[in-house]
Amino acid sequence: MRHVVATLVVLSGSAFAGEGKWTPAQVLELGPKWVKEQGFQLPLSKLWDKKKGTGLLSNAVQLPGCSGSFVSAEGLLITNHHCVVSILTEHSTPGANLFEDGYFAKTRADEKASKAYRIQVPRAFRDVTAEVRAKLDAAPTDLERYRALEAVQNALVAACEKEAPGEGASGTRCTFATFDGGVTFNLTVFDELSDVRLVWAPPRGVGEYGGEVDNWSWPRHTGDFSLLRAYTTKGEPYRPQYFFPLSTSGVKGGDAVAVLGYPGVSYRSLLAREVQERYERFFPAREKWTGEQISLLEEATKGSEEGRIAVSDELKRLANVHKNAQGQLAGIERGDLVKKRADADAAVLAKAPAKAVEAQKALEAVLEARLKLWEHDFAVDLLPQSSRALDWAVTLARLSTERAKPDLEREPGYQERDLPRLRERLARDQKRFFLAADKAATAAWVKRAQGLPAEQKIAAVDTELSKKLDGIYAKTKVGVLDERKKMIEETAEQLKARKDPLLELGFALDAERKAQKERVDGWVGATLVHRPQWRAAVFAAAGKPVAPDANSTLRVSFCRVKGYEPRDGVMMKPQTTLAGMLAKHTGKEPFQVPQKVLDAARAKRLGRWRDATLGDVPVAFLADCDTTGGNSGSPVIDGNGKLVGVNFDRVWENVANDFGYNPDVARNVTADARYALWQLEEVEGAKELLVELGAGPAPNR
Amino acid sequence: MRHVVATLVVLSGSAFAGEGKWTPAQVLELGPKWVKEQGFQLPLSKLWDKKKGTGLLSNAVQLPGCSGSFVSAEGLLITNHHCVVSILTEHSTPGANLFEDGYFAKTRADEKASKAYRIQVPRAFRDVTAEVRAKLDAAPTDLERYRALEAVQNALVAACEKEAPGEGASGTRCTFATFDGGVTFNLTVFDELSDVRLVWAPPRGVGEYGGEVDNWSWPRHTGDFSLLRAYTTKGEPYRPQYFFPLSTSGVKGGDAVAVLGYPGVSYRSLLAREVQERYERFFPAREKWTGEQISLLEEATKGSEEGRIAVSDELKRLANVHKNAQGQLAGIERGDLVKKRADADAAVLAKAPAKAVEAQKALEAVLEARLKLWEHDFAVDLLPQSSRALDWAVTLARLSTERAKPDLEREPGYQERDLPRLRERLARDQKRFFLAADKAATAAWVKRAQGLPAEQKIAAVDTELSKKLDGIYAKTKVGVLDERKKMIEETAEQLKARKDPLLELGFALDAERKAQKERVDGWVGATLVHRPQWRAAVFAAAGKPVAPDANSTLRVSFCRVKGYEPRDGVMMKPQTTLAGMLAKHTGKEPFQVPQKVLDAARAKRLGRWRDATLGDVPVAFLADCDTTGGNSGSPVIDGNGKLVGVNFDRVWENVANDFGYNPDVARNVTADARYALWQLEEVEGAKELLVELGAGPAPNR
Repeated sequence: MRHVVATLVVLSGSAFAGEGKWTPAQVLELGPKWVKEQGFQLPLSKLWDKKKGTGLLSNAVQLPGCSGSFVSAEGLLITNHHCVVSILTEHSTPGANLFEDGYFAKTRADEKASKAYRIQVPRAFRDVTAEVRAKLDAAPTDLERYRALEAVQNALVAACEKEAPGEGASGTRCTFATFDGGVTFNLTVFDELSDVRLVWAPPRGVGEYGGEVDNWSWPRHTGDFSLLRAYTTKGEPYRPQYFFPLSTSGVKGGDAVAVLGYPGVSYRSLLAREVQERYERFFPAREKWTGEQISLLEEATKGSEEGRIAVSDELKRLANVHKNAQGQLAGIERGDLVKKRADADAAVLAKAPAKAVEAQKALEAVLEARLKLWEHDFAVDLLPQSSRALDWAVTLARLSTERAKPDLEREPGYQERDLPRLRERLARDQKRFFLAADKAATAAWVKRAQGLPAEQKIAAVDTELSKKLDGIYAKTKVGVLDERKKMIEETAEQLKARKDPLLELGFALDAERKAQKERVDGWVGATLVHRPQWRAAVFAAAGKPVAPDANSTLRVSFCRVKGYEPRDGVMMKPQTTLAGMLAKHTGKEPFQVPQKVLDAARAKRLGRWRDATLGDVPVAFLADCDTTGGNSGSPVIDGNGKLVGVNFDRVWENVANDFGYNPDVARNVTADARYALWQLEEVEGAKELLVELGAGPAPNR
Repeated sequence: MRHVVATLVVLSGSAFAGEGKWTPAQVLELGPKWVKEQGFQLPLSKLWDKKKGTGLLSNAVQLPGCSGSFVSAEGLLITNHHCVVSILTEHSTPGANLFEDGYFAKTRADEKASKAYRIQVPRAFRDVTAEVRAKLDAAPTDLERYRALEAVQNALVAACEKEAPGEGASGTRCTFATFDGGVTFNLTVFDELSDVRLVWAPPRGVGEYGGEVDNWSWPRHTGDFSLLRAYTTKGEPYRPQYFFPLSTSGVKGGDAVAVLGYPGVSYRSLLAREVQERYERFFPAREKWTGEQISLLEEATKGSEEGRIAVSDELKRLANVHKNAQGQLAGIERGDLVKKRADADAAVLAKAPAKAVEAQKALEAVLEARLKLWEHDFAVDLLPQSSRALDWAVTLARLSTERAKPDLEREPGYQERDLPRLRERLARDQKRFFLAADKAATAAWVKRAQGLPAEQKIAAVDTELSKKLDGIYAKTKVGVLDERKKMIEETAEQLKARKDPLLELGFALDAERKAQKERVDGWVGATLVHRPQWRAAVFAAAGKPVAPDANSTLRVSFCRVKGYEPRDGVMMKPQTTLAGMLAKHTGKEPFQVPQKVLDAARAKRLGRWRDATLGDVPVAFLADCDTTGGNSGSPVIDGNGKLVGVNFDRVWENVANDFGYNPDVARNVTADARYALWQLEEVEGAKELLVELGAGPAPNR
């Protein structure tokens, strides 16, 4: 049977081609024969050169929360439309809304430079497991083990960032990563490029077509593309080591593809009871909280155009997280994933050495401890996302405290290297601040905190706080941008001397957060010992490479273009077309095709981008790639290393893929490169750009 | 391109195998080669014997609003579950709800006889065109022509019903039918069987699984079956001339099938401007009115279990009509059907003789006249469905008036032959009467009538009527069953002497209705001349047989099992399965699978009904058959004359099929016979019944 209800969810092992967000090192381990079997004609040595620690696979660059890739020798870079919204907003004026209308730079001089947007191009990947493990093993307690991890992380990153950047880069940026709770540790060395300019973003009616209605679903007709160009510190186009020319022939069902990028978080290495915590506590709480926040922000900004604009980004983020949580819950339930994980755990346990059995028990003990303070910790974790006021207050308090320490002893995120980003964020936030909405959001968080069980109370939140909020908002200067800019640079004593009631609340809440962190650090310190022991037994049972959980490091997934059956009787085809995009057009958001696109499509100016089999221009395609959040903008390449599309979503039935790969419904959604080429050629008339993208000039045009 | 947006809607001609609700006579005309090309191995002479005027195709019996067919030599008859709801209700008691729980008669003695349910088995089909046309041609005016039609109809039916019934039948019943507005006229002679007993109806959780949510859609998992048995006047099982044994091998994609039955109404012979009237006036008004009625009945019965039960049938009918109207509108718009019909009309006009051109103009003139009084006439037409009170009042007034005339001069429906049915309905209605709901419904109609444009006012509805309604309801005896039973038998004078205010309103409204009828009769009288002249030009242009519009006479559609693409990127597979039925189960209406069915399905007791290709028991299938309302319960047979399923719905994209056959989306929905057999064998353990149905005993069980 091929239906969702009856499908097998494989929680470990990798019987299916599409499964596995592999590290480049694992791709080498899987070997040339395996890679060839995935449909990749390119020699493995071209994909990854072990000696150099790099290769074609490293043409996946890291953008803020997204992935991207170079597509020309002169620094052109492709990613999603939704990954450059901040640049579009930055350059929008009352007379020119780039987010709504899109932008196309006719010449290089017209490209729009961003003040804050940076990209990170991986230069090297270093396995630092031995060095880190030595420090961890020397620690006498769980907490000290965690602190040893932070210390070695800080030291490694600091030393690494002293290395000279590659040619044209503005600096070296290093990222430390823990794999599967401590199985291995890695340092990725990036060239940071800080001169990034917008070349092309289609109008919202193309780049965000379908909006929230179509989000996490199929069929899709979204042209979720944008083109940037990176420049060197000398102001010359950056010349990347690798780039993917755009494929003009495209893909069809069954074709081999690969997705490269920086997937953020997944939960496949968790134990059954830890999955249960996600299913019974975490995702339901997140679903409820984000749902309430959405209603609250909508209510608080009703009738205010200004308010709506201020909270629009936050509303979009909340809607996405909310729908994701629903998808995770539905998927875990439909796939019976808790039970299946328990069965998989039992199978490993049956053959596991005593040490692994003990480790499994120890991990469950940590979980038990966490569950006892679950409500408290969840509420504290919500602080930075609950309101600007709470976020600012806690961040300012924390920053002033951490800055008092030597740089290498600070919490990651509060070191000197992090301050420019922190300053930018605290300034940029002003556009997203709307008093009525922020008050309501703060009040909701305080109410939640006040409702905690007696043994889990947050000391800083007394029973009177709700009543005091209006007064706090009236008195505080934290909401005033110029004052806040000053505060960023002040010491804890200076901040306290201000007697600002919001800052006082911030210090009190941060003390609570800090105490919690110490507790959590101890737990993490314990798992640094136990998780690797347990995973060793899992790997032994699998008898072949097992891809680690996503952790924002570079991964590759080898897969095939493929439709799927979401439910009995329904087959999703692997490709959509321009005609389907037209059929969805209602003239109302989110299905409002821009006039120039309507004209071209209705006149059937398909040009050379018409796919003979489809009889139309392809718009998007499905493949069984193993992706998650962070893979937005990931290049999707064919077996010859040509770019055939840009990944931008997963299908609804595949949201719980974070807990296990289900070959029947594991489908990512890719915007077809030919749709971008069609837009550029038939709508924008971007002849030179097409040549630069490797799509040559159209014959006789 | 294969998408809905771009598909060709064929409004005349028949380039596609599935198109055409053919009369048996037309099947002969299409010839044995054509029938063979449709995948039917049976010789045409077996399907239809011209000399006898009957054949295998006549094993489609007419049920109230539905179709059905014999499936055994001993009078077993299969139809939809939703076609026997009245029998289930008739036999339900507070302790035994047959509609909810279903019923299975273990022995013949357990079969449940219905008091009112009758079936009509066709015995002969007579073309009476020459005779009728002679009378019409002799009429000097349009109105007299219409009256001539009524007179000849009454005379033909009366003479026909004097013929002796076939063996075991309780009587002869004859139905007169006009084809395409007067192109031909036909008399169908039926044997009426009035001893009909319920053998099997599955529980609601099978027979109505999916309810309103799934209605008019795909994928479906509804076991919309029931089995009845007809008995002779001597109380013996009726032995039908023909029956379809159930196929045990079933169908797969691409297989040839045919649907037989009594489709009710379609609009394919209308002119473009007449289609426009349906699109711009009729369906929007119907959609709005039924939507308002639904809200009103729900509101009026809120909190009352009794009220809910009383209006449940009406609500179901309204929901169905409402969704159908939405589907018609969406389909006409999506298919651009008004424009396409205009193009088709123009193509015919270009080659039409002068007489046909004149006829087309005359038909448009009739339409113009109708449009001027459209709102008035629509409101009056709503009378019988607006409330019980209005229906009773007008029906009683009308009945008493018509009865004063000689039988053959009465309006059809009010002759002696019709009285038993009329009495039954007026009595049965009592269960469906709930005072608060009825008052609200009447008030809504009165309000609508009061809002008519000045020149279209209904004289019987004065500005004070709204205020008088409570008083009318308080005083009238029409709502009292025993009184109403007496009223049915009274003369107009007796009724008027009662001074019952509702009856007084009824007489006033009926006078209005009658005046309207005379006007409409004149228009119909005109079209009786012009429509055939216009259709002759259409037929000449087609150059091959054209199936007439549905008119509740016996038709057959030859077609193939086939999926479809409702929209870009989505493919509907042609079959659904038991696993899909289980996947929809939520435990809540309308997705509540009965425990015994759940047990059998979850334990995978698929038995011999497992389809090897599907790996499961098939539940429903799609085919490109040409069906409409009235085809509910229609037998679906394979090329060998075996029953492979029972038709029960169309897909959403195919609702506007009433205006033209679109091969891309023309799909009817059939409950697979193997699902019924699985239910009977694995759930009910109905061994003997399986043998009688031709499904033999299961080997070694």
